[in-house]
Amino acid sequence: MLRNILVLGAGKSTSYLLDYFLEKSNVEKLHLTIGDINPDAIPKTIKDHPNCTVVQLDIFKDKDREKAIINSDIVVSMLPARFHMKVAEDCVTLEKHLVTASYVSKEIKALDQRVKDKGLVFMNEIGLDPGIDHMSAMQVIDSIRNQGGKMLLFETFTGGLVAPESDDNLWNYKFTWNPRNVVIAGQGGAAKFIQEGSYKYIPYHKLFRRTEFFEIEGYGRFEGYANRDSLNYREAYGLHDILTLYRGTMRRVGFSKAWNMFVQLGMTDDSYAVENSKGMSYREFTNLFLPYSPTDSVELKLRHYLKIDQDDSKWEMLSELNLFDAQKIIPMANATPAQILQLILEDSWTLDQDDKDMIVMYHKFGYELNGKKSQIDANVVVIGENRSYTAMAKTVGLPVAIATLLILNKQITTPGVQIPITPEVYNPILAELKNYGISFKEYEVPYLGYNPDTVGN
Amino acid sequence: MLRNILVLGAGKSTSYLLDYFLEKSNVEKLHLTIGDINPDAIPKTIKDHPNCTVVQLDIFKDKDREKAIINSDIVVSMLPARFHMKVAEDCVTLEKHLVTASYVSKEIKALDQRVKDKGLVFMNEIGLDPGIDHMSAMQVIDSIRNQGGKMLLFETFTGGLVAPESDDNLWNYKFTWNPRNVVIAGQGGAAKFIQEGSYKYIPYHKLFRRTEFFEIEGYGRFEGYANRDSLNYREAYGLHDILTLYRGTMRRVGFSKAWNMFVQLGMTDDSYAVENSKGMSYREFTNLFLPYSPTDSVELKLRHYLKIDQDDSKWEMLSELNLFDAQKIIPMANATPAQILQLILEDSWTLDQDDKDMIVMYHKFGYELNGKKSQIDANVVVIGENRSYTAMAKTVGLPVAIATLLILNKQITTPGVQIPITPEVYNPILAELKNYGISFKEYEVPYLGYNPDTVGN
Repeated sequence: MLRNILVLGAGKSTSYLLDYFLEKSNVEKLHLTIGDINPDAIPKTIKDHPNCTVVQLDIFKDKDREKAIINSDIVVSMLPARFHMKVAEDCVTLEKHLVTASYVSKEIKALDQRVKDKGLVFMNEIGLDPGIDHMSAMQVIDSIRNQGGKMLLFETFTGGLVAPESDDNLWNYKFTWNPRNVVIAGQGGAAKFIQEGSYKYIPYHKLFRRTEFFEIEGYGRFEGYANRDSLNYREAYGLHDILTLYRGTMRRVGFSKAWNMFVQLGMTDDSYAVENSKGMSYREFTNLFLPYSPTDSVELKLRHYLKIDQDDSKWEMLSELNLFDAQKIIPMANATPAQILQLILEDSWTLDQDDKDMIVMYHKFGYELNGKKSQIDANVVVIGENRSYTAMAKTVGLPVAIATLLILNKQITTPGVQIPITPEVYNPILAELKNYGISFKEYEVPYLGYNPDTVGN
Repeated sequence: MLRNILVLGAGKSTSYLLDYFLEKSNVEKLHLTIGDINPDAIPKTIKDHPNCTVVQLDIFKDKDREKAIINSDIVVSMLPARFHMKVAEDCVTLEKHLVTASYVSKEIKALDQRVKDKGLVFMNEIGLDPGIDHMSAMQVIDSIRNQGGKMLLFETFTGGLVAPESDDNLWNYKFTWNPRNVVIAGQGGAAKFIQEGSYKYIPYHKLFRRTEFFEIEGYGRFEGYANRDSLNYREAYGLHDILTLYRGTMRRVGFSKAWNMFVQLGMTDDSYAVENSKGMSYREFTNLFLPYSPTDSVELKLRHYLKIDQDDSKWEMLSELNLFDAQKIIPMANATPAQILQLILEDSWTLDQDDKDMIVMYHKFGYELNGKKSQIDANVVVIGENRSYTAMAKTVGLPVAIATLLILNKQITTPGVQIPITPEVYNPILAELKNYGISFKEYEVPYLGYNPDTVGN
């Protein structure tokens, strides 16, 4: 008997997800239905697959949505997170499992008891970050604890970057996911974490100067800056009294220091609309944030304001982005600085058709076992194939797809609104990810912590 | 026949206001009723005055509030701005005039038609800033325009400072008004203004480094940083196409650069609660914002982080505030960084009983008249008497009191929700303020603008 999978939203990040279902569709007896507001954008190879049906679906039309859901056995929502709630409510009512790669909202969390009562699995945060980070971290943490070890330190960094072979700009960066999230990253409050038992707070305007460096074997050096709340999963991971807990974002060395120029200027601000933005040149935009002068150039004012020496490579990084171009024009009216900066960056940082992206994830686990302190470093690097088959689409889409099939096959059965932090979930998914080349390397290294007195203890 | 004035809220800022009414009470046949939640705090000389009645009043008890208002001819609300609305609604219903020193909220503004229909005057923003700034600026602007002149530039700065004779700390600053407003000043969005026809935006973390200096004859040098929205009164003042419009806050030279240290550290943040704030030392608080080190001192970490050289006087300014004191303890639980910083600053910046404060206001008016560009600089300095009779209480309270009497005496009659920008209002009030020593000095100076080519044109 065929099992019906309904995928809502088939954006460009779903290539690997859809392929996974269709590849398995004969063996696993799957029928895939894709509901999308704009089905024309779905590739012909998908649409024409015998085990696939595509329907035009406006998620806000209650009747249409319910009809699609009622005919399915499990629902995968790849819609923007703010659209999940209507789907989730239908899934409870109509008794369907649900899988999403999004953060668990308060509203979704509130469905937990009803979801449990009906024996349903609502799996969330099962993409890359959140997703693979949860699973790979909890597998190591549980293993340390099962041996009787005590966790001292957990640091984790993820970056969506450009692969070395396609890395051809001075920032060593291209957009591989939602550019808006990159432009406003870190905003909305101080970054908070714990280091050796001390709480630490970094305001937004210092975030990109408080980076740390690390090396990934075979891929060179990277840097990491703190995410806004490193402590979010302290309870979920069972790390109540851990000394060091830090979650960060990875970039190539030098990116953050250069990005800080935008922060300092105020160009990443998303809280107000620029007056007369429509028709303004990139150069005029840059000048909004600099003191007035009837004679001095925008270039020199910026160098002086940000104290950029003549031989500072940050200057070439700025120039590469056409920030001083008086011919390039902003088309949007009433745009925020962040929206305009995004537009300017997209000119330079969009993947070409054959560009490959790269996902890097790096965990450090410090622990004490039998009186000895040790550390495990683990990392995974995934390189994309091209602009359609990105490492980002792979690392987000595959865990979603694998989880969906495991739920259908009753290998994941614990009901409730959940994230993938239990062995029932992470073991089979991480095992299957290995078959697709997503496999962590682990290294035993000396425990360092941040307290040199304890080295070698 | 006696006229009844109801004053709601008799905080420490009302000394001059209450005295003004009581001094005039026999000649002008006034009876003053003071409604306050805590009447015990009102000085005996006020309470015992034969023309004064004091009532204990909880503004949220509708019956009590209405009863107080119904027996009055005019209501003066010195309550915090968020409490004005209930009073304003009663005043419309019961047909009483209303005077406040607060900004016109949307809700109050929405009463305009009903206020006009009943022939009432709702006078707002009639304190110092807003208040005296509106009146003194509009008197000059109207005079320029009445001569046929065209406004090119308007800049205005106000500062609540400590008088030179009581200025005994390195910051040349003490709190003379709500300390909280000082700590969070400039937050909530970029500062926006126009210079020579160009919009300019300064993000919060750069605000205190984009100051300008000026000299007030007899009082030395000051600096000014931009207020959040300099353009708020562009329409109200009729300055639609002015080239330069800037509103700022005044401090003694060096304050802003030093204050910027708190901003850079993140100590002025009011958006989150510090974990375990209760019982934390001032030193531990400072360390929250610095990188972890098992060996380096908080002092050196801070100097390094903020690049404070050994001979930089900012260092003494910080040290003076006990920021590195491990004995001084924060008593509040779940306090924000801004609340904790306020506590620390209040230790050092509170006026002593005999300390005098100082209000400084400075306007620049650039204009073109008969083909010639000119500039008028105007300033006023007011020195307080002591901690009870402050220059702040005087400059806020007297305009409120004077306006109240003028409305009672039907010298201000134009009805509606308004601010003091018409000759009917500003002329008699500014004239009466002169009798109390609040008098602007005006200087004709060469028009400078920001465009040296036009100097002398």
